[in-house]
Amino acid sequence: MSKNFGPEYVRAIAPYQAGKPISEVAREFGLDEASIVKLASNENPYGVPESAKTAMAAAAADLGRYPDANGFELKAALSERYDVPADWITLGNGSNDILEIAAHAFVEKGQAIVYSQYSFAVYALATQGLGARAIVVPAKDYGHDLDAMAAAIDADTRLVFIANPNNPTGTFIGAAEIEAFLKKVPANVVVVLDEAYNEYLSPENQYESAAWVKQYPNLLVSRTFSKAYGLAGLRVGFAIAQPALTDLMNRIRQPFNVNSLAQAAAIAALNDKDFLEQGARNNAAGYQQFVEAFQQMGLEYVPSFGNFVLVKVGKDLAAGARVNLALLKQGVIVRPVGNYGLPEWLRISIGLPQENAILISALQKALASDRE
Amino acid sequence: MSKNFGPEYVRAIAPYQAGKPISEVAREFGLDEASIVKLASNENPYGVPESAKTAMAAAAADLGRYPDANGFELKAALSERYDVPADWITLGNGSNDILEIAAHAFVEKGQAIVYSQYSFAVYALATQGLGARAIVVPAKDYGHDLDAMAAAIDADTRLVFIANPNNPTGTFIGAAEIEAFLKKVPANVVVVLDEAYNEYLSPENQYESAAWVKQYPNLLVSRTFSKAYGLAGLRVGFAIAQPALTDLMNRIRQPFNVNSLAQAAAIAALNDKDFLEQGARNNAAGYQQFVEAFQQMGLEYVPSFGNFVLVKVGKDLAAGARVNLALLKQGVIVRPVGNYGLPEWLRISIGLPQENAILISALQKALASDRE
Repeated sequence: MSKNFGPEYVRAIAPYQAGKPISEVAREFGLDEASIVKLASNENPYGVPESAKTAMAAAAADLGRYPDANGFELKAALSERYDVPADWITLGNGSNDILEIAAHAFVEKGQAIVYSQYSFAVYALATQGLGARAIVVPAKDYGHDLDAMAAAIDADTRLVFIANPNNPTGTFIGAAEIEAFLKKVPANVVVVLDEAYNEYLSPENQYESAAWVKQYPNLLVSRTFSKAYGLAGLRVGFAIAQPALTDLMNRIRQPFNVNSLAQAAAIAALNDKDFLEQGARNNAAGYQQFVEAFQQMGLEYVPSFGNFVLVKVGKDLAAGARVNLALLKQGVIVRPVGNYGLPEWLRISIGLPQENAILISALQKALASDRE
Repeated sequence: MSKNFGPEYVRAIAPYQAGKPISEVAREFGLDEASIVKLASNENPYGVPESAKTAMAAAAADLGRYPDANGFELKAALSERYDVPADWITLGNGSNDILEIAAHAFVEKGQAIVYSQYSFAVYALATQGLGARAIVVPAKDYGHDLDAMAAAIDADTRLVFIANPNNPTGTFIGAAEIEAFLKKVPANVVVVLDEAYNEYLSPENQYESAAWVKQYPNLLVSRTFSKAYGLAGLRVGFAIAQPALTDLMNRIRQPFNVNSLAQAAAIAALNDKDFLEQGARNNAAGYQQFVEAFQQMGLEYVPSFGNFVLVKVGKDLAAGARVNLALLKQGVIVRPVGNYGLPEWLRISIGLPQENAILISALQKALASDRE
């Protein structure tokens, strides 16, 4: 690495490891693309809702134009859905963009960001990219220890990232615990509540985080259309926060960060209740399918509230990588999580029933040969 | 503005002023959307090439999946076109993203960035967003004064932005002058050569900046698909630079920054020579149409090498805003450039012949009533 260029804190970043695309696995392992099952990126196995396809077709004529920099129509739809003014909303190029914008807007070099061990990789990347100081709080049962996180906030802390449900572990924090945390956080510390997997929560676990935003001027709720809404390839997410935060987000946001088709598709998907309900049903059934299989195989897993399960595939520190490779050779892509400090585990996204069945069978084979 | 949150340098940013979308002008002025002519954002008046539409339709099935984080196929196409290795290329969510990533990857708070007066607004935003120090070099004849810019580089300077052709003034710097500049720049200062309008240059002005990249390890060339290629609404741009720079860009880049449709459409557009040639012909003819009309009206303009012209519409500091409003009322959207320190001027994009004619006629009316 040349030392001629870039701040030291940028040179120290280890880039994000994305799930392997199907085309790349096909090339690497000499497989037919159509035969590959990808359960690696917590995507919606049903793909894009038909309603969104129709909306995109209508918007396609205008793609020579820049997107609406203010996202008027999508913000109007979100404003109605979440009962907040439109100028409390920031649109992002996926919620990854929201998380990066928040770090950039609220934290400067040398200040601190608090997040949990085993939480979403982008929190560390956003912190490192600013030359900010990471305060990584040890996880409790693979999830957030909010008491310890509140205690870890120091005088230099400007932001706390919380993922609920958490990726890659799937853990969940109930409403009462989050509110108790919000009451403890100093007024000048922004809490980014990352709810990328919110739509998979069962009704009894749902809570109204948009209502909390009205009460807590330092709360920013982040959501995405990449998971339950099936629009990962289009890139669109959003944040809800009071104007004091949103105004700063908009100073950092790239003006045309959300493309025109994503804006149109998101409006349609937001109103497609059937698609969401079907997705949630499939997800609940697929979760049961995995859990039963893991229990049968005697595998430890972390109970999950998202559209994926973290499962322990061996006892040594190379187990995840080894079983992952054995799965790849069978044309099944899952996510190794060694970069999260979980080298004995794999994160497996919930797919369609037949995809889950293929994974289960491939995993059995991989583990059998791994034990030989 | 609350002082509870955010670094002082973020609170000081004045957000980018995007061109008004057609829908917003229609709402504000009670006009029919179909009757509105938008010559405000240097877009391609022909819209998306048919070849790109076909490519998007093929890619649409897979939008539930995340985009390829490594942009394998688009980088392969660019690699072939520009005769550089694929790992010398960084993809961006438009070239705006490339410019922001470069600032973020190579400059930290307190270090300096050099750019020209009257150059693209994103250079200032990217500088402010980092808490970096802007060294703004006075323009020469509304364009870059490269000798003065080289002289302005100080010990803390880490990056220089050059727009060629420049937006919003349309000025152009020839190859010999740029090479002379590159030879003078210290080896630890990154030169970002922003060529968003490159494809509009006539053959005698074209030069091989990708070849310079092989010679200058501190040069990063930025290009976009938003202008000549007609893909503004999709968001895709790219950078070419040696691995020492590209590697750092990839540490700052959001992994899924370029959506799947943009990647597919860009490959098709890149190979659509007919579309580019037709666009260039239309642009040259439209430029003549504008220039003749401005001369007839006795209006000063800056000779342009892009797909837009900067024209002086009055002598007082409110002239641009006043004439802009008069044009809006007639359903014609152009770009006031008071935020660039050019309040007597308007930037007008070159449209289709009939759109240009409507602009000329509306401008004549606006100026006539302005003089009353």
